[in-house]
Amino acid sequence: MSENLCNSSTAVLQKLYDEAVRQYESFKARNLKLDMSRGRPATAQLDICNGAMNTLDCWMAEGNVDARNYGQLAGLAEMRRFFGEWLGIDPDTIVVGGNSSLNMMYDTVVRLMLFGTMGNPAWKDCGKLKFLCPSPGYDRHFAITQDFGFEMITVPMTPEGPDMDMVEDLVKNDPAIKGIWCVPLYSNPQGICYSDTVVARLAGMECAAPDFRIFWDNAYGVHHLYGETKLANILELCEKAGNPERAYYFFSTSKITFPGGGVAMMASGKASRAEMLKRIGIQTIGSDKLNQLRTLQFLKDPQNAQQHMEKIAESLRPKFETVVNTLEREIGGTGLASWNSPRGGYFVAVDTLEGCAKEVVKLAAEAGVVMTGAGATFPYGKDPRDTNIRIAPSFPTVQELECAMELFCVCIKVSCIGKLLRERA
Amino acid sequence: MSENLCNSSTAVLQKLYDEAVRQYESFKARNLKLDMSRGRPATAQLDICNGAMNTLDCWMAEGNVDARNYGQLAGLAEMRRFFGEWLGIDPDTIVVGGNSSLNMMYDTVVRLMLFGTMGNPAWKDCGKLKFLCPSPGYDRHFAITQDFGFEMITVPMTPEGPDMDMVEDLVKNDPAIKGIWCVPLYSNPQGICYSDTVVARLAGMECAAPDFRIFWDNAYGVHHLYGETKLANILELCEKAGNPERAYYFFSTSKITFPGGGVAMMASGKASRAEMLKRIGIQTIGSDKLNQLRTLQFLKDPQNAQQHMEKIAESLRPKFETVVNTLEREIGGTGLASWNSPRGGYFVAVDTLEGCAKEVVKLAAEAGVVMTGAGATFPYGKDPRDTNIRIAPSFPTVQELECAMELFCVCIKVSCIGKLLRERA
Repeated sequence: MSENLCNSSTAVLQKLYDEAVRQYESFKARNLKLDMSRGRPATAQLDICNGAMNTLDCWMAEGNVDARNYGQLAGLAEMRRFFGEWLGIDPDTIVVGGNSSLNMMYDTVVRLMLFGTMGNPAWKDCGKLKFLCPSPGYDRHFAITQDFGFEMITVPMTPEGPDMDMVEDLVKNDPAIKGIWCVPLYSNPQGICYSDTVVARLAGMECAAPDFRIFWDNAYGVHHLYGETKLANILELCEKAGNPERAYYFFSTSKITFPGGGVAMMASGKASRAEMLKRIGIQTIGSDKLNQLRTLQFLKDPQNAQQHMEKIAESLRPKFETVVNTLEREIGGTGLASWNSPRGGYFVAVDTLEGCAKEVVKLAAEAGVVMTGAGATFPYGKDPRDTNIRIAPSFPTVQELECAMELFCVCIKVSCIGKLLRERA
Repeated sequence: MSENLCNSSTAVLQKLYDEAVRQYESFKARNLKLDMSRGRPATAQLDICNGAMNTLDCWMAEGNVDARNYGQLAGLAEMRRFFGEWLGIDPDTIVVGGNSSLNMMYDTVVRLMLFGTMGNPAWKDCGKLKFLCPSPGYDRHFAITQDFGFEMITVPMTPEGPDMDMVEDLVKNDPAIKGIWCVPLYSNPQGICYSDTVVARLAGMECAAPDFRIFWDNAYGVHHLYGETKLANILELCEKAGNPERAYYFFSTSKITFPGGGVAMMASGKASRAEMLKRIGIQTIGSDKLNQLRTLQFLKDPQNAQQHMEKIAESLRPKFETVVNTLEREIGGTGLASWNSPRGGYFVAVDTLEGCAKEVVKLAAEAGVVMTGAGATFPYGKDPRDTNIRIAPSFPTVQELECAMELFCVCIKVSCIGKLLRERA
């Protein structure tokens, strides 16, 4: 297919539609059972990491710390140094957590809700609360701010990050806007990388709320598929711009070692970190230090860790290429959908004709292929134009993906050509 | 010493005081550096658990769950069954967390503060909040309720648990009282075990607040030094009394395997659990499942785990006996102090003459022996009578303890005899 079908004759459309419906029915008869719904690593990818489950031979950490015992609220010095060197941030701004960076984001919002920060009132006492949600984005981010009762404001994404004209205008004038969710490198789901200009504007923009905060979830910061894409240093830029406490930086090894047993961290301005550690010291005596040592024993140092990431990239690349190539082959040029070709991360985002995403996901599900729910990539689970679908190619094998993507393209044809036909009826 | 010194002549007291001061000065000259401040396991005790750091050979969990990957919000089925069988509670009431039960307590208070429970208003919207603190008790419990702004009400401990007449009277009449902290077996610091009657009264008592909650921190539930002491089942008793959602039960393997890498859990009524899981599902995708498998690989089953606890008890018993025997030998019958002889747990509590605890701890510190700060066992860190001192004998060796306890007894003599002399001056 290459003709833009929006301009085709009704007869041509009808013929293509009938063919797509036939193909769909034959897929249905195959009783598929495939899952492209979440960014779960595949079994083969996890196998690359099995060394991270080996016996921990040495439990003595730097500074004569017995990692088996209590203590070290901010995490082991060597773990903080490892993260700091790998990510290019000061180890003294880092706090190491448990296995979930999402948990650290949630707890950060909790602290802001209950206690506030830097002498500003607790967010629970601020009346109406709003949060900026660049969309499409990560559903679990939006779920947190929804649960805490924020009004979530959708900000469109551009090829270099959130629409900064809109962001600047909003935060300058509305003190109820307390923060923004960002996945700055290989964004979920579009794979967009924030440009240096966008990062600098976020760091320096004028905010009506003195306690406006950037939640910088660099989940895919080292997850390059085709070599490194650079990301500007938000913490440094915030400091230079005179807003040293504006950003909270999150990262984890969930997709480096194991989602079910990794190590998470966050970093921030130094005053925020000191304030947080006081609160965290009431919440816990310290995170799992043995898993920090175990993870370090496996990843060793940033150079070795990045080589390990290259092995993971090798297992992921054919999957992303299957997704993009199948879309190109089956839908390319038809105008029925558009998509991105991400250079890293975990997702491909597809935009169908308006009003078709829900139907496509439903058709795929009825034929045995589970996708992320349409709408999930927008606040409140509501995609205003019903176009965006997130594809998570990491879990299935390449063979399974080939099949699932063929079905997916058939579903797009059934739904989108069906829509074009209805519009002409 | 065996004469009750309160009745001794001033001359006798002066002689004993001078001798104690001489002894104290000679201890000081030895430049000791010992720590009896926190319930930290000793290196030798941790060595007993080193098998829990062995290679994890099998990562497939029950129900074909790959523990390396995402999922299983409530924890692995086998981990919940293990805890359930060991503690005599229904595995379907359990949620497994990270490495810290304190963290689960804190997060539970957070959920009550921000969201409330069972349709009752969020605690943050309830105005004045109060919490019952049986004392002496655990300073980290009190720190949580202090941080959230509760007025903490001290409830005296009796040999079978909190003073239940006082508890019942308070909770019946004051809807601002939202909960009570309990360490029901081998309480911290006195080693008191709640009687069946006390547990039943807690479960059945009439509460003005419909959302009154018992925080049941069974930290020492399997930490017997001289055979098992039975504890009534709070969750069952609450259910029988028609208050199925009243208790939150907490437990962890911090002092079974490693404080720096154990597994924590909580249990509750089924409706509370369902409500919690919804919130926890916003906070995280799941706790570290590999550490659950690793811990199970080491502890195997409740029978084997209890045998492991007997090994730990063997390493702890001589320490507790050193503490109690030294106190008996040096202070017994003098009336200068009283103490308990706990049958499990991690602490011995000593009560000096009124107004002496702070001075004793200060004297010990100046001679190189760090104790838990006097007052720490009471809300706001303020022991109204300044008598209670918590001894944590787990970390030092027996030899170190012998020395530290001799010094401690000398400090008691210096401070308490000094007080008796001042009163006569």
